[in-house]
Amino acid sequence: MPFDLIQGAAVIGQSGGPTAVINQSLVGVVEALRGADAITGILGARNGVRGMIEGRFVDLSACSSETLEQVAITPSAALGSSRDKPDRAYCEKIFEVFEQRNVRYFFYIGGNDSSDTCRIINELSDDAGYELRCFHIPKTIDNDLVGNDHTPGYPSAARFVAKAFMGDNLDNASLPGIKIDIVMGRHAGFLTAASALARQRDDDGPHLIYCPERPFDPERFIADIDRVYSSKGRCLVAVSEGIANAEGEFISAMMSGAGEKDAHGNVQLSGSGALGDWLANLVKIELTPKGGKPPRVRADTFGYLQRCYPDASDIDQAEARAAGAKAAEVAMSGDKDGSIAIQRISSHPYKSALKVLKLTDVAAKTKHMPDEFITDCGTNVTDKFIEYAKPLVGALPAVGRV
Amino acid sequence: MPFDLIQGAAVIGQSGGPTAVINQSLVGVVEALRGADAITGILGARNGVRGMIEGRFVDLSACSSETLEQVAITPSAALGSSRDKPDRAYCEKIFEVFEQRNVRYFFYIGGNDSSDTCRIINELSDDAGYELRCFHIPKTIDNDLVGNDHTPGYPSAARFVAKAFMGDNLDNASLPGIKIDIVMGRHAGFLTAASALARQRDDDGPHLIYCPERPFDPERFIADIDRVYSSKGRCLVAVSEGIANAEGEFISAMMSGAGEKDAHGNVQLSGSGALGDWLANLVKIELTPKGGKPPRVRADTFGYLQRCYPDASDIDQAEARAAGAKAAEVAMSGDKDGSIAIQRISSHPYKSALKVLKLTDVAAKTKHMPDEFITDCGTNVTDKFIEYAKPLVGALPAVGRV
Repeated sequence: MPFDLIQGAAVIGQSGGPTAVINQSLVGVVEALRGADAITGILGARNGVRGMIEGRFVDLSACSSETLEQVAITPSAALGSSRDKPDRAYCEKIFEVFEQRNVRYFFYIGGNDSSDTCRIINELSDDAGYELRCFHIPKTIDNDLVGNDHTPGYPSAARFVAKAFMGDNLDNASLPGIKIDIVMGRHAGFLTAASALARQRDDDGPHLIYCPERPFDPERFIADIDRVYSSKGRCLVAVSEGIANAEGEFISAMMSGAGEKDAHGNVQLSGSGALGDWLANLVKIELTPKGGKPPRVRADTFGYLQRCYPDASDIDQAEARAAGAKAAEVAMSGDKDGSIAIQRISSHPYKSALKVLKLTDVAAKTKHMPDEFITDCGTNVTDKFIEYAKPLVGALPAVGRV
Repeated sequence: MPFDLIQGAAVIGQSGGPTAVINQSLVGVVEALRGADAITGILGARNGVRGMIEGRFVDLSACSSETLEQVAITPSAALGSSRDKPDRAYCEKIFEVFEQRNVRYFFYIGGNDSSDTCRIINELSDDAGYELRCFHIPKTIDNDLVGNDHTPGYPSAARFVAKAFMGDNLDNASLPGIKIDIVMGRHAGFLTAASALARQRDDDGPHLIYCPERPFDPERFIADIDRVYSSKGRCLVAVSEGIANAEGEFISAMMSGAGEKDAHGNVQLSGSGALGDWLANLVKIELTPKGGKPPRVRADTFGYLQRCYPDASDIDQAEARAAGAKAAEVAMSGDKDGSIAIQRISSHPYKSALKVLKLTDVAAKTKHMPDEFITDCGTNVTDKFIEYAKPLVGALPAVGRV
């Protein structure tokens, strides 16, 4: 070994909301670690850090390449996921288990909460004097990790959202009315913005797009819809689940009272149609002419399908795989810790590369849509956003019209 | 001409909720009518009967084959749809327009309400002494037309539901909890039952399936979920939007008060997440242990994506096309009216044929899931249903596991 690589087992965990390609990263790590001299075993932790403290591991080195390739193209976390946020006591338990099994390499695939988990474990292992090399592999459909052009998982979710809006735009054109679709994305509007990729003609929806990066004002919302509906006779609207008022309070939280919170303090936004229904009802009430018939208003909340529908983007699959492999490679080249990040080299033709960031540069930080991606009116995306997102999602079906 | 075929124009309309393959039927009619001696023009009515009384037509004979082929694979009604239910006065207006344009062939693509529209226009044209040949081409994701093995539109919607449950089952396995998914289907459970096609292993969800064919009892529902959740630590549930109590009242209508109704008297069930949220809340309240933490309960309502997501089943595309062509062929062979129906010849290998039913045999009737498709416990489907539905949806992705 060219470096002072400590010999030991590797543990891989998956964390946070699953994606369509999170298993590509898992398989990327496993395939790249196989045969490395320093690696005495490759363990998959069931349900992230939770499986680590409970000693629930699967021997991934025993898996055939055929099995791994099938796992790679399967959506959602094959090892199971977790939303636990380890504190010092939790981490000490992890180290106990790691020591027993001589685990020296820790790979954690997840979003910003998970990168923070990775950072905490890294720091506590230093404090505990336990030599552990910690690498974070990015994953989030929200696309909100700093230092990344985009994150694995986002292109596939964006592909689903674009195709869903393409179909829903045709549906709305055929039976005209006001249709509101709620899209995932807690603090960042990237996924909601991807609805714009559905457009092929000027009159295609979504006609209005509401991202969390702009304060949401119900009165303005009604006026926007009224304007579009009056001129086009229909209106398709994309709304992020994470829209908040000027004070930064989630509209969905205001509406339903104090919602459920997870260990990271995140309010539950998904898994409920309440925000869409509330907005639809508001529009129906406000836009019903005096003594007249209410407009046809419907709301759909795309929900968990956005992160697990089995139709991943090809680029996403390849990049998620490469990100996993990169983490294993830098670990084997002697690096002690870091977070893998995708950098864009060019959009035409699309080309990306991977680099390694410091864990502290990524952990628990949130990237938002840059201003140049949102139009001045605040309810549409710019050509720059389209140029950014279009290469990621892969080919979309063409629409025929008569 | 071998028969006494009246010379005139043909009008084609699309009606009711659109599907992913309704345009295949449209193109099937157009292509089969082209060049027929009796046909002086092929008109597409915008928004079904509504466009007919308003004289909004598009000249389909002017469309290139290339355009038509692109339209054929595009989801949702390319001509626009309608939910109008013509009465005598409405039909007289239609005849006026038809007479002006010498329309003698009427093709209407739609579900059971639309077949009834077709029947009414047919009877009123007889009464009015206006020679008009009326053909109904089946379409409905609900799959509830009598006399049909299944209806165009259902296989593609079933494919979406199966893939959605496949992904959601993996999501639920990775972050365990109770997940309720609401599936379209006003009176028939065929689409909800298609969720079972997602299963590849014994422990895969959906673990419980609630169709409108069995009375829905909230207490029983809670007990069912409790049993599954206690033994598996998770529970994925498929619920039809059309579930009703023993008195036949929609649960969603009881819950939200009197809902919106369309011209056919149908209560609005889709375009709202209220039923799923109500059920999820009920489960959360009932299954929270005294002084303990509530279980993780989420609900998604698949909504309009089920009928318009651009990923149609191959068999569905071919059969919808053939059903349109068949209607044109029987019209050109001298038949006066009828409704096209798919008959199954065999499941292994899958083979179907088309026949012509009387309009009165199909119109405004509803087919339900046969008893042999539902297990005795009422919360699962039988192998017979799987054998019935599996060939229709096309290949589904295989799942890899570690």
